Amino acid sequence: MPLGEFDLIERFFRRASPRDDVLLGVGDDAALLEVPPGQALVAATDTLVEGRHFLAGAPADSVGHQALAVNLSDLAAMGADPAWALLSLSLPDADADWLQRFADGLFAIAGQHGVALVGGDTVRGPRVVTITALGFVPPALALRRDGARPGDVLYVSGWLGEAAAGLATLKSGAMAVSSDPLVRRYLFAEPRVALGRALRGRATAAMDISDGLLGDLGKLCATSGAGARLELDRLPISAELAQRHSHEQCEHFALCGGDDYELLFTLPPVGSEQLEAELAKSFALRRIGVIEAEAGVRCTRGGRLETVSGGGYDHFA
Amino acid sequence: MPLGEFDLIERFFRRASPRDDVLLGVGDDAALLEVPPGQALVAATDTLVEGRHFLAGAPADSVGHQALAVNLSDLAAMGADPAWALLSLSLPDADADWLQRFADGLFAIAGQHGVALVGGDTVRGPRVVTITALGFVPPALALRRDGARPGDVLYVSGWLGEAAAGLATLKSGAMAVSSDPLVRRYLFAEPRVALGRALRGRATAAMDISDGLLGDLGKLCATSGAGARLELDRLPISAELAQRHSHEQCEHFALCGGDDYELLFTLPPVGSEQLEAELAKSFALRRIGVIEAEAGVRCTRGGRLETVSGGGYDHFA
Repeated sequence: MPLGEFDLIERFFRRASPRDDVLLGVGDDAALLEVPPGQALVAATDTLVEGRHFLAGAPADSVGHQALAVNLSDLAAMGADPAWALLSLSLPDADADWLQRFADGLFAIAGQHGVALVGGDTVRGPRVVTITALGFVPPALALRRDGARPGDVLYVSGWLGEAAAGLATLKSGAMAVSSDPLVRRYLFAEPRVALGRALRGRATAAMDISDGLLGDLGKLCATSGAGARLELDRLPISAELAQRHSHEQCEHFALCGGDDYELLFTLPPVGSEQLEAELAKSFALRRIGVIEAEAGVRCTRGGRLETVSGGGYDHFA
Repeated sequence: MPLGEFDLIERFFRRASPRDDVLLGVGDDAALLEVPPGQALVAATDTLVEGRHFLAGAPADSVGHQALAVNLSDLAAMGADPAWALLSLSLPDADADWLQRFADGLFAIAGQHGVALVGGDTVRGPRVVTITALGFVPPALALRRDGARPGDVLYVSGWLGEAAAGLATLKSGAMAVSSDPLVRRYLFAEPRVALGRALRGRATAAMDISDGLLGDLGKLCATSGAGARLELDRLPISAELAQRHSHEQCEHFALCGGDDYELLFTLPPVGSEQLEAELAKSFALRRIGVIEAEAGVRCTRGGRLETVSGGGYDHFA
């Protein structure tokens, strides 16, 4: 029996709101939301296209997870508290099983971060998912990309390259291996919301790594009107990754692979070690370089400059 | 020369913000926005898929216009002041000419309503456009769908059926006829933002007509836990439409055609004539019926009940 659009929303996407700042949620022309006084609204939108951002046949719960995760990662990169999401779902058919698993994945990560789904649109078309995530941050404490200054110390959270390695495994045809930790890193990326919040008013610049460290660091530097020196010896490569790929391959995944959704950020030079020690009590993070006045990203190994090829991901390149 | 994703955003979508409540716009991980104190945030998202919501080969400026117009119409239906928009654009290629015309259409209507484009995402994929529109309204004055009560008088703005007639003309193959006023009604629908604002705290319920009067009135009634009597003799059918189609066809367009984006609203019975007269000084509106306790929509002609077939548009029906 085909599901109508309204049944579909009712059955899969209308759930009791976990938040009391939702004055009106799914079901009217628009949502009505309460932004706390003194906070700026933070808004990001990201789109996933089947066959490009997720593989055809990808587990539906991972698609639901990913669609929200990439947006929460953008909010994390601003130091924001996530609050609400709007979902636009274009689907070739109303497959109840796929929808149920998609909704499960979406609501699982939404619940972890206290996010309410407050509206959206469901249409028939190619499988394309767009989420707009909304949150807030005290405006003076927001993390921006443009604040890095020469001398600032460059950090990254977590491990790099695991998601890219997981994607490579998936693409090699082993679609059933979703219990593989690297594959799960790709399918179920964790946005660094708590770290973003902890960096408020402390980091001089921050962004999330979605298109690869090298390319994204280049963007942070360009936006800040600065450059960076990156120490290749200090790239955070996990034992799991190192066991399964050559060192060269691991480094390539870490530098050029997308989908890690770790945070890249800079701390001011004075007091950075103390701040690092404090943050390290709660978060995995690694000092990987320093901001310099000269534009561009320079990589060093054992203190010597080294040329690295390969850039980030550009959808239209 | 192929355009990269960042060139594309820079060239077509980064424009000086017309608003000083945009603390940070296009170019960071997320936008940073200031909601005025005492106002609720209003958020809506709508997706247009090529071949479904707009015709393959539709003028790109009309696609840009429509993508924002349908969202502003949702805000209008809440009585909100539109403020900001986020754009997600999935395109098969970075066709500079198409993008320029799309951006022109989008920024033209954005400018008319003082809306700033504050963020978005551009990806390669099928041609799918999603916009999230954000605005505000004092929460106690917001127009909702659920407030219609038996005895309330039912109104609609503007003319109905013109957009559906225009779409039929387009589909008949006359794609070059975009100077035809009915075709323009379809391609360049005007969201009733000023009327929505004027209805704040006055209308007991409101929604915009996107999927056809009959179906949308059914939704308003169901959400309000009521029904309606609709006077077919009072449907607002323009001279332009009546000249070009049979009366029966005009009525069908008006009842079942989508894409009018007029407002459907109810006024309390006491004082409705005075309020109507006041509103009529600035807006085209027509009393078309009354809310009743009995569920469902009943049509009358010359005071007698008449059965009308055909419902609204359901994307998955």
